[in-house]
Amino acid sequence: MPDTDAARVTPATLPIALDAMGGDHAPDEIVAGAVQAVREHDLRVVLVGAPHLLQEALARHDATTEIPIIRAEEALAMDEGALASLRRPRSSIAVACHLVRRGDAAAAVSAGSTAGIVATGKLRLRGQPGVLRPAIAVALPTLPTPTILLDAGANAEVKPEMLVQFAHLGTAYAETALRIDSPRVGLLTIGSEAEKGNKLVKRAHELLSAAPGLNFAGNVEGHDLLTGVVDVIVADGFTGNVALKTMEGSVRYAFAELRETIQNSRTARLGGLLQRKQIQRLYRRLDPEVHGGAVLLGLNGTVVIAHGASQARGVSAACVLADELARHGVVNRIGERLAASHRPHRLW
Amino acid sequence: MPDTDAARVTPATLPIALDAMGGDHAPDEIVAGAVQAVREHDLRVVLVGAPHLLQEALARHDATTEIPIIRAEEALAMDEGALASLRRPRSSIAVACHLVRRGDAAAAVSAGSTAGIVATGKLRLRGQPGVLRPAIAVALPTLPTPTILLDAGANAEVKPEMLVQFAHLGTAYAETALRIDSPRVGLLTIGSEAEKGNKLVKRAHELLSAAPGLNFAGNVEGHDLLTGVVDVIVADGFTGNVALKTMEGSVRYAFAELRETIQNSRTARLGGLLQRKQIQRLYRRLDPEVHGGAVLLGLNGTVVIAHGASQARGVSAACVLADELARHGVVNRIGERLAASHRPHRLW
Repeated sequence: MPDTDAARVTPATLPIALDAMGGDHAPDEIVAGAVQAVREHDLRVVLVGAPHLLQEALARHDATTEIPIIRAEEALAMDEGALASLRRPRSSIAVACHLVRRGDAAAAVSAGSTAGIVATGKLRLRGQPGVLRPAIAVALPTLPTPTILLDAGANAEVKPEMLVQFAHLGTAYAETALRIDSPRVGLLTIGSEAEKGNKLVKRAHELLSAAPGLNFAGNVEGHDLLTGVVDVIVADGFTGNVALKTMEGSVRYAFAELRETIQNSRTARLGGLLQRKQIQRLYRRLDPEVHGGAVLLGLNGTVVIAHGASQARGVSAACVLADELARHGVVNRIGERLAASHRPHRLW
Repeated sequence: MPDTDAARVTPATLPIALDAMGGDHAPDEIVAGAVQAVREHDLRVVLVGAPHLLQEALARHDATTEIPIIRAEEALAMDEGALASLRRPRSSIAVACHLVRRGDAAAAVSAGSTAGIVATGKLRLRGQPGVLRPAIAVALPTLPTPTILLDAGANAEVKPEMLVQFAHLGTAYAETALRIDSPRVGLLTIGSEAEKGNKLVKRAHELLSAAPGLNFAGNVEGHDLLTGVVDVIVADGFTGNVALKTMEGSVRYAFAELRETIQNSRTARLGGLLQRKQIQRLYRRLDPEVHGGAVLLGLNGTVVIAHGASQARGVSAACVLADELARHGVVNRIGERLAASHRPHRLW
C-alpha cells in the first residue's frame, strides 16, 4: 500500500473511469453526462465502451478531443446478474474497475445493473484488508448535509459484526466526501429502546455501543430517514434496500398525487402554475437520480453506482461524487478506521 | 365455535368497546371520537375507563345518555410494554378485550401503546386455532382500495410458514372489510425475481407459490407500497414496521418541504393559498392518523390499534374500521381460510 499522503494526492490528477455501456439510456446519456462533468465540473473523465458508438456520441457534443475512450467490446446487460461478471471479464464495467486497480483512474462509475457492478467490483478490486463485506451506501437528501444509509442492498444476510463495519464505512464516507466531524451513527430498527428489534440489531446495538472510534447515537426508526437526526444509518442490506425504495416510492407518490390534485381544480391549477418552478426545484432535490448515486464501499478503489435510469444530469452527479470520494481518500480512511478498530484489543 | 352465519350476524348489533384511557390525548379526544362515531357513523360504542373522567368528558358533548361507560380503574401507560398486560389485568384495554371475549362487544379499539395492546390482546383473546402468530395489519392509502401491509410490527422474528399465514390473514381482511374478490398477495423483498431476498423470503416465496387458496402475485419491492399493484403485502414484522414508518416519514417530509417551498417565495405563496384546501384534503388522505388504524389479526376477536397520537377523527375512523371488520366476520373468515389451507394435505 502507498503511504497515506501520497495516496491522498494522487487521485486528484487521475480521471474518472465511466462505464459508457451500462444503464437504461446508454451510451447517449452517459456520454452527455461525461461532457457535463468535464465542462461544468472541471473533471477528467475517460469513457469505457464500444469506440465507434462513443465516437459518434461524442461528436454530437463536439467533444471527441476532450474525452478519451478506452475500448471494451462487451457490456453487462441490465438484466444480467452477478454471474455475468465472471462470464464477461472484458465488459465495460470490468475494464473500468481494472483502470482503478492499475492506478490509471481515480474511481469507476457505472449506471449498469447493481448486481453486476457489485460482483464485478468485488472480483476486480477485491475487498479491503479486514473488510468482512463491501456495502452499498446511498446519500439521502436531508439538509444541511445528506444522511448516509448503508447497506442499501449488497448483503441480504449479515452478521452483527458486519453492521459495526458498515458503521465505519459510512462514517468514513461522511468524514471524507461530506466533511462531517465525528458523524453520528444510528442503527435502523423498530423502536428507540436498546432492546427493540430482531436478534441481529439487538446484538449489533451492544457491539456498536462498545465500539471505539464511532459516535453511536442509538436506534433510529423508519421515520428518521429524512429528518437528519443522524449522519449515518446502518442496516442489513435487506432492510436498507426496502427502506430506500419505500422512501423513493413514497416521495414520488406524494408528488404525483399533489400534481393530480393541482390539475383537478381550476383555482388550484392557477396556484400550481405560480409555484411550478419552486416545486420542480424541490422535486429535483428529492429525486434519487440526482443524489449522485450509490457507492460501493469496502473495496480497494471507489465504485459509484448511478441510478439505472440516469440521464446526463444523474451521470454527471455520479462522476462528481466519485471524484469527491476519491480526492478525499475514502478508501484510505476506511483502512485507517478498520485498522484502529482492531488495535488495542479485539472488541468483537 | 358458533356456526358461521349466526356469528356473522351477531356483531352488527353489538357495540365497539373503546379503551378511553389509551393514547396521547386520552381521555378527551377518545371520548370526542366516540361521540363522532355514534353521531356521524351510527355506531354503538361503549367507553372503557375511569367513570368520573369519562362522565365529565361526555357531558361536554351532551352525550352522557348516548354512550355507556364500563368501569376500568387502571390503564396502561404509553411507555409500558408487553409485561404491563400481566401486571394490570383490570386495565382499560384488558377490560375492552374481555367484553369482546364474553360476546358483549363486537370489537375492541385502543390508541394505547402497541406493545401493551398486542400483549393484552393475546392474553385475553388468545390466538385463533391454527394461528402461529397474530400479526398487525395496516391499510396503506392506495386508490381505489387500500393495500393491506402485514406484519407491521407484532413479530420481529418470524419463520417462512408464518408469512404464509400472514397472507391468509391479510387476504381475509381484504375480502371482508374491503370486499375485494381474490385479493392479490405480494411478498415484500428486494427484487422482483423469485430468488431475490434473504433466506426467509426465498423460502416464503416457495411456500406462497404452492399455497392453495391464495392469489400470490410474486415479489414486490419498497416502491410498490403505494402503487396498488397488489392488495396485500406480506413481510416479517421488522421489515414491515421499518417500511411503514419510512413511508409515513417520507410522505410527511415531502409535504413539509413543499410547505416550506411555498412559504419561501411570494408568487409560490399566492399559489399555495389558491390550492390550500385541495392540498389539505390530499394530506388528510395520506395522514396515517386517518387511515383507521392497525388491526391485530389472528385472535378470537377483532382488536383495532389506533395511532397513539389520534385525535377525535382518528378514533372515530378506528371505530368504523373495527365495526366493518366485525360486521363482515373477519375472524370467522380467517378460521375458514386456515382450516382450508390445512385440509387436503399439509403443504408445509
